[in-house]
Amino acid sequence: MFALVNRLQTKPGERDAVVENLLESGKAFDGNDACLLYLVTESVDEPDTIWVVDLWTSEEAHTDALQDPRLRPFIEATMPLLQAPPEQIELRHRGGIVSLASLD
Amino acid sequence: MFALVNRLQTKPGERDAVVENLLESGKAFDGNDACLLYLVTESVDEPDTIWVVDLWTSEEAHTDALQDPRLRPFIEATMPLLQAPPEQIELRHRGGIVSLASLD
Repeated sequence: MFALVNRLQTKPGERDAVVENLLESGKAFDGNDACLLYLVTESVDEPDTIWVVDLWTSEEAHTDALQDPRLRPFIEATMPLLQAPPEQIELRHRGGIVSLASLD
Repeated sequence: MFALVNRLQTKPGERDAVVENLLESGKAFDGNDACLLYLVTESVDEPDTIWVVDLWTSEEAHTDALQDPRLRPFIEATMPLLQAPPEQIELRHRGGIVSLASLD
């Protein structure tokens, strides 16, 4: 199991646009059984900060998913809206509980 | 929906002990429908860093859950193993996808 926490810092006022891009581009993972979680959130305290939490069955599955050509236009549209390259923190899943039935 | 990313920095060599405490104490949330996600992970690159991702139906539900007296011994056992107080980042959920059936 491969997890990532990604911190994105947008240019001032561009957070909503980046969130929309992240949600739209995330639809590429919809039919992908290797993508267990793709959670797009925004900081309560920092107006231009986005946090994305991903959970994948393996690092390889994540790498493969990023090859999807449908992602390219979203990446190209998003990069100019960011203050800096995304900060990507690689994590190993140790455990926990999940009862996300009510999330949809 | 209320989300939290928590970063814990343990004293050297104490990460496994803290992960165990987090997983054990998380069992207090097992029957709690307000806890949608409680994910315990460890940094791949930093040997003493733990990241916990929580998702709750509301901030109030989270506050209530932390009142559970079963948590106290775990908190008391964990605090001396940390380098610093946990860093807690409050987030608003914006969307994403979830297919965690294979997590259990």
